[in-house]
Amino acid sequence: MRDVAVIGVGMSRWGELWSQSLRDLSCEAALKALAQTKDGGVDAIHVGCMSGGLCAGQEHLASVVADYLGFSGVPASRSESACASGGAAFKAAYAEVAAGLCDVALVVGVEKMTDVGGDEATYTLGTAADQEYECYNGATFPGLYAMMAVRHMHEFGTTRRQLSLVAVKNHANGLKNPEAQYHAKITAEEVEGSAAVADPLRLLDCSPITDGAAALVLCPLELAKKFGKNSPVKVLGVGHATDTIALHSRKDVCRLSAVEKAAQRAYKTAGLKPGDIDLAEVHDCFTIAEIMVTEALGFAKRGEGGKLVESGATGLGGKIPVNTSGGLKSKGHPVGATGVAQLVELVVQLRQEAGDRQVGKPKIGLAQNMGGTGGSSIVSILGV
Amino acid sequence: MRDVAVIGVGMSRWGELWSQSLRDLSCEAALKALAQTKDGGVDAIHVGCMSGGLCAGQEHLASVVADYLGFSGVPASRSESACASGGAAFKAAYAEVAAGLCDVALVVGVEKMTDVGGDEATYTLGTAADQEYECYNGATFPGLYAMMAVRHMHEFGTTRRQLSLVAVKNHANGLKNPEAQYHAKITAEEVEGSAAVADPLRLLDCSPITDGAAALVLCPLELAKKFGKNSPVKVLGVGHATDTIALHSRKDVCRLSAVEKAAQRAYKTAGLKPGDIDLAEVHDCFTIAEIMVTEALGFAKRGEGGKLVESGATGLGGKIPVNTSGGLKSKGHPVGATGVAQLVELVVQLRQEAGDRQVGKPKIGLAQNMGGTGGSSIVSILGV
Repeated sequence: MRDVAVIGVGMSRWGELWSQSLRDLSCEAALKALAQTKDGGVDAIHVGCMSGGLCAGQEHLASVVADYLGFSGVPASRSESACASGGAAFKAAYAEVAAGLCDVALVVGVEKMTDVGGDEATYTLGTAADQEYECYNGATFPGLYAMMAVRHMHEFGTTRRQLSLVAVKNHANGLKNPEAQYHAKITAEEVEGSAAVADPLRLLDCSPITDGAAALVLCPLELAKKFGKNSPVKVLGVGHATDTIALHSRKDVCRLSAVEKAAQRAYKTAGLKPGDIDLAEVHDCFTIAEIMVTEALGFAKRGEGGKLVESGATGLGGKIPVNTSGGLKSKGHPVGATGVAQLVELVVQLRQEAGDRQVGKPKIGLAQNMGGTGGSSIVSILGV
Repeated sequence: MRDVAVIGVGMSRWGELWSQSLRDLSCEAALKALAQTKDGGVDAIHVGCMSGGLCAGQEHLASVVADYLGFSGVPASRSESACASGGAAFKAAYAEVAAGLCDVALVVGVEKMTDVGGDEATYTLGTAADQEYECYNGATFPGLYAMMAVRHMHEFGTTRRQLSLVAVKNHANGLKNPEAQYHAKITAEEVEGSAAVADPLRLLDCSPITDGAAALVLCPLELAKKFGKNSPVKVLGVGHATDTIALHSRKDVCRLSAVEKAAQRAYKTAGLKPGDIDLAEVHDCFTIAEIMVTEALGFAKRGEGGKLVESGATGLGGKIPVNTSGGLKSKGHPVGATGVAQLVELVVQLRQEAGDRQVGKPKIGLAQNMGGTGGSSIVSILGV
């Protein structure tokens, strides 16, 4: 098995991009990433996308992307694992490069979600949960995460203010990210005064509906100088795990066991532990998610994720900066693009090219991507 | 890179299965395949499915399948490449086993398509073509294949009768396959007298809408005796390629260049040529497709696929039996399951367990799975 490196990264602008289609966004991000390679060629393409069919009427998207990039002929597949689709596409490309089935692999994460109405977007996101038992009976995504939040507050004394502080921090970071959907500083009072979505979650606890794409180019570490223009960023470990699809099947709804298992696998492969991580991009689809994920990754003890954000440790100047990009909350959440963009942010930080949001000289970054209410998770560790 | 073997295969019954859901069908096929392993465990799951979202409102299907099989925790991803989704899932599992990322991988192909109306099914299948340029302007899947047929007839003198003979042969084979959707012997006259769908294609030129699942278990060849109950079937080569998504972008609509490239890659890896293949399962979504595919695979010269079927060479007793299972035409076409079921048929034939449709003592089989109008194709070669 070969060691794998990231040699190119790119992102489109994220937001409500009504003039750009799925294929436009994919090509914009991919061409930026390919511009960081020496010859711009690839021999495999992996696309991460959840809602191409439901939101844009386009399945078979990997062939569309290959075609519109001028790579018709090149093998191309789409990976889907709900909101972890980007991480799944990265893992699929990683496996092929590691196996020696290809040398240069392009990963594109993309979603085009604002062309449908709010009801349709909510329905589409619900297809990441258990359609037959949860959605059929009226559950929505904010509703499911609200239940997790209520239980976490009851069990561990997590406060409404701690939830707010996740949104405040991530919006502060997003203000410094030119590609982010929102550039708006917000206060805890504004979060708490925003419209109720599903108690205790308010509008500003929720990540938005977003159009956008992100891309990576991978190759074997030993060939990184041949194919890449920049110093390579190494893939140190990739962990992947699932949990029950429905929340009601779990013994403990405050525990993201897919994240715990994926992290354990990634840490083991990398030979690292939580304290070795210099920064992390995590799946803050709702504020409570970031709190629970930081616990599952081992950055905080169980039940103490709320205290962690309150302490400032996850801020830009903190001990373990989390979501320096602005996270899903402020950067936006084009579902299939998210897992890829998390890795883009790590590469930009590890190369010390993050401008105003640069967090010193980090050596090791972790990305945690999650599907549904934690029905799947992929944790990847990169290093220089 | 490790050599890979198939150690277990299974299929659900295929047809209009209104009492079974996506998860029921997946589990039925998977449990049959796992029963051929010694301990029934797996450490990776890959699901091939195209229309879980559009037809059943369920994305994140790999986590659902892992959960309902009792494998919650195990890494699970879904691959989608339209009608080649099953082949793509197989390739993803193959890459992980070859790389050493997992030892025992389960591949499940599944589709549940009969719960929606005919219009919705036609819309869903159309999402495999170019939504923005083909479907938006009224193209349907039968319409696109009809254009390919018209041109093939014009260019090479392929006859209406030759198209019919593909359907007649595959229905004759399906009659001997207990899992097939249709058990009906048909004549060329019946094909030609059936309702017009898109000239020259009639109803009996078209594969049906089907519910069904198929499953495989893979492991490293060197561990096949440890994990499998039967003699292993070796994966000799896997080739994958794309073509333009839209038919109008191709220089020659009579040429399936994705199939040609995928086949060349698979033959090269296996060190084999077309004449070495003992039997093949190919993607006969429409009768013209089988004719064009046999040319692209090198079983017939260019333009002579019609003559090949007319000669009887692709029949059960012929030189190169094609679609001994009944093919998509008679066995059915639950889109994401098809590519997996093709490999199931090869394994059953290579193990000489195919009963009435057994074709001697074959040593090498080829499966060709195709997305859209040939926008992608995966060709896999198995051997004993």
